[in-house]
Amino acid sequence: MRPSPDKTLTSRNMNAKVRKAEYAVRGELAIRSEHIKVELANGASFPFKRVVGCNIGNPQALNQKPITFFRQVASLVEYPDLLKDENAELTSKLYPSDAIARAKLLLKHIGSVGAYSHSQGIPAIRENVAKFIAERDGYPADPSKIFLTQGASAGVQLTLQMIVEHSQVGIMIPIPQYPLYTATLAVLDANPVPYYLDESKGWGLTTQELQRSFDEAAEKGIETRALVIINPGNPTGQCLTEENMREIIGFCRRNKVILLADEVYQTNIYQPEQRPFHSFKKVLKSMGPEYEGFEMISYHSISKGMIGECGRRGGYFECEGLCPSILEQIYKISSISLCPNVQGQIMIDLMVNPPKKSDPSFALYKQEYDAIYYTLIKRAKKLEDMFNTLEGYTCNSADGAMYLFPQIRLPMKAIEAAKEAGKEPDQFYCLAMLEATGVCMVAGSGFGQVEGTAHFRSTFLPQPELFDEFCAQIEAFHKEFMDKYRD
Amino acid sequence: MRPSPDKTLTSRNMNAKVRKAEYAVRGELAIRSEHIKVELANGASFPFKRVVGCNIGNPQALNQKPITFFRQVASLVEYPDLLKDENAELTSKLYPSDAIARAKLLLKHIGSVGAYSHSQGIPAIRENVAKFIAERDGYPADPSKIFLTQGASAGVQLTLQMIVEHSQVGIMIPIPQYPLYTATLAVLDANPVPYYLDESKGWGLTTQELQRSFDEAAEKGIETRALVIINPGNPTGQCLTEENMREIIGFCRRNKVILLADEVYQTNIYQPEQRPFHSFKKVLKSMGPEYEGFEMISYHSISKGMIGECGRRGGYFECEGLCPSILEQIYKISSISLCPNVQGQIMIDLMVNPPKKSDPSFALYKQEYDAIYYTLIKRAKKLEDMFNTLEGYTCNSADGAMYLFPQIRLPMKAIEAAKEAGKEPDQFYCLAMLEATGVCMVAGSGFGQVEGTAHFRSTFLPQPELFDEFCAQIEAFHKEFMDKYRD
Repeated sequence: MRPSPDKTLTSRNMNAKVRKAEYAVRGELAIRSEHIKVELANGASFPFKRVVGCNIGNPQALNQKPITFFRQVASLVEYPDLLKDENAELTSKLYPSDAIARAKLLLKHIGSVGAYSHSQGIPAIRENVAKFIAERDGYPADPSKIFLTQGASAGVQLTLQMIVEHSQVGIMIPIPQYPLYTATLAVLDANPVPYYLDESKGWGLTTQELQRSFDEAAEKGIETRALVIINPGNPTGQCLTEENMREIIGFCRRNKVILLADEVYQTNIYQPEQRPFHSFKKVLKSMGPEYEGFEMISYHSISKGMIGECGRRGGYFECEGLCPSILEQIYKISSISLCPNVQGQIMIDLMVNPPKKSDPSFALYKQEYDAIYYTLIKRAKKLEDMFNTLEGYTCNSADGAMYLFPQIRLPMKAIEAAKEAGKEPDQFYCLAMLEATGVCMVAGSGFGQVEGTAHFRSTFLPQPELFDEFCAQIEAFHKEFMDKYRD
Repeated sequence: MRPSPDKTLTSRNMNAKVRKAEYAVRGELAIRSEHIKVELANGASFPFKRVVGCNIGNPQALNQKPITFFRQVASLVEYPDLLKDENAELTSKLYPSDAIARAKLLLKHIGSVGAYSHSQGIPAIRENVAKFIAERDGYPADPSKIFLTQGASAGVQLTLQMIVEHSQVGIMIPIPQYPLYTATLAVLDANPVPYYLDESKGWGLTTQELQRSFDEAAEKGIETRALVIINPGNPTGQCLTEENMREIIGFCRRNKVILLADEVYQTNIYQPEQRPFHSFKKVLKSMGPEYEGFEMISYHSISKGMIGECGRRGGYFECEGLCPSILEQIYKISSISLCPNVQGQIMIDLMVNPPKKSDPSFALYKQEYDAIYYTLIKRAKKLEDMFNTLEGYTCNSADGAMYLFPQIRLPMKAIEAAKEAGKEPDQFYCLAMLEATGVCMVAGSGFGQVEGTAHFRSTFLPQPELFDEFCAQIEAFHKEFMDKYRD
């Protein structure tokens, strides 16, 4: 970087809060992997044929096929001429009748996917989200308290922005956490108040630890206003029990803390018998009138689950117990950005209201959905088992989500080599893996971890036909790495 | 609003900067118009049959037909099965060959519209944007300095966030301005530094006025870091001359101010002979090596022009002369939100690279584009002429953009009635118009105006077949309003 004394804007006088923000998922490793991709395309030689992006839950980038029905509807609403009578015969040969009917219904509500919609999201789609929540939980939901967003990330950013009044406000976040939270708090100049997940107990969470974290922050003069829970966990994959969730809600109530429930992995559940998903909304409502007025926001997304429509940027959040004046403020701030993109909103409609048993598209939908789901269970288990055979690795199972977060005990020699290279040990390890195999992970230091430990996050999204090769590459790399650095 | 002393989050202890932000385009008038729509649908009686949203440049909401070729490509990329050999015959009956070829090419670069893309935007699309800029201006553009965004608004918010280091930073904005700017500056706790456009000279801009504004801010201890120019103007519709633009660039250089050029209306040019559009990039480059390293960001969008794909949320900004470290920071902050939605990016590709003369879709494209363009010229003129016949109105022509911003001299009786109702006089007038006609405008107070004057912003987007009725409604309303309040 050449110095620029003559520039008005430099990295020295820019917004320091923005400068401070870090987002490891697309940081040094991801940037290097993008460069390698370009070099590979230009014919450069590497010890691998392709880059495998396991740094981010981006299934369609690894060739997961999208749900056909969803794409048929999206295709039809883009080009409404297909729905005209003169094209009916041809269109009916390319699209099933229920996709055509759904597209017509959506266009009736929307008008055009090219028009700005209601800033809170299209009313008819919010009604369908409310129905979905009510069916999932057995308790009613109110469309006027649901906001459609450009992905769950946008919802998290928007709501945290509402809550952070001044620089002594604290927001409790898990360690390890998804770095969206620390990045957003850095930009808002708020204090992350860390609570630790217990790796030795399957990334378990206790209210004792929550209280310790809250109290220590209070001693430092931090006003803790909200608690972020990621369930199922990211990067850790654990899924909370109902009993644990009741305790957490009780903790929030006692300490007057708003619960922010990041539930974007709610359908990525791999041990549905032992560890089913419960929404915080359902658990809260089951706790009776004593909890009336409890303040909570829960987030969902079209990017995860078996849908994986990340590039579309769609999500929603539901507000529970918030002041009406706060809902008005959320609306106002949403309106400055005009509206969430309409194709993202349509995909939310499809997610919450997929084909039903009697619909022509149901069989294919179920087949595609199940195929993704069951191989995700298999891939999660296969990767976990492989990790646990490697020298120095220990890895908890994934109850849910899309990630494993193994711990690696690195040899001292490797730790010293990392120090010499000016890198965190786990970053050093992941960079070596990338250069040797083309596999891009995210080092644990980007998520937070107990001091002195080393981890990385890996998705298990490489496609089934490539999965054995993917596992073998990591195994071979690790053996070589250990041979080089073993103490 | 019931008081909520028991709530953790209230409008009293929320983020005060967010509370302070105002966005009139979707404020009280727009919210009331949404309620009226619902009431109309439920059978309530009003003195009109429909709500006409002239508060926002949202052409497709007023039934402007989208460009067919663009939608064909968008439809094909959603459902790639259409591009398979077994569907080739049917697909070719519904889609022209150049739409099919473009969709295939885009999918080759993108993979899937459901995958997160590069956080800065898909490289191949940024290359096309660079080619477009180079062709438009006659000077090269660099894809690595172009960022695709979720609409120009997101680009403006992101870049202002970079620049605002502390609460003494000032950003120069025109008065009247598009309220995105004041809203974003409120959230960032920065100082709007207002400069006034001269209504009596067709909303002209002088560097004397810029310097006055800059100097007065400096006297108050404000460090002015950037100057926002909206060209063509919003809400004012003026289009800058090349000479004026050179003066503005000179002003920025002398005062070390970054130029932020909001050029989203660059193709909405209604007097192309007398007042053609010049990009600031082109004018800057024509000023020679003395201006090497000049810092500028310019914004463009798919929401305006003849495209009007607002609901899709797509845009870009080009950085000129910024420090490489600032570009890295912009990339980092973009990556926290992962990527702009891919369908929005695809529409940018189509905007900058529409069908060419030899392409099968060219004739239809040109016909659709021109039809929108020429009736916009007519509608702008018709509305201006009508306004200028009304008692107490004066209205400048629109050289460009999508709006007129007439001044109304309201009678004292109306001003008193407004005061009694607790409203600004122009807000009072616009509310009366909405209740009488269903036409929703935005009062001038939402954009800023010379103290004691009253204006409103109106789009001229109602469709040609409804335009006479639209004009007649306003005329009839104004007559009645004046009969009621004339002094």
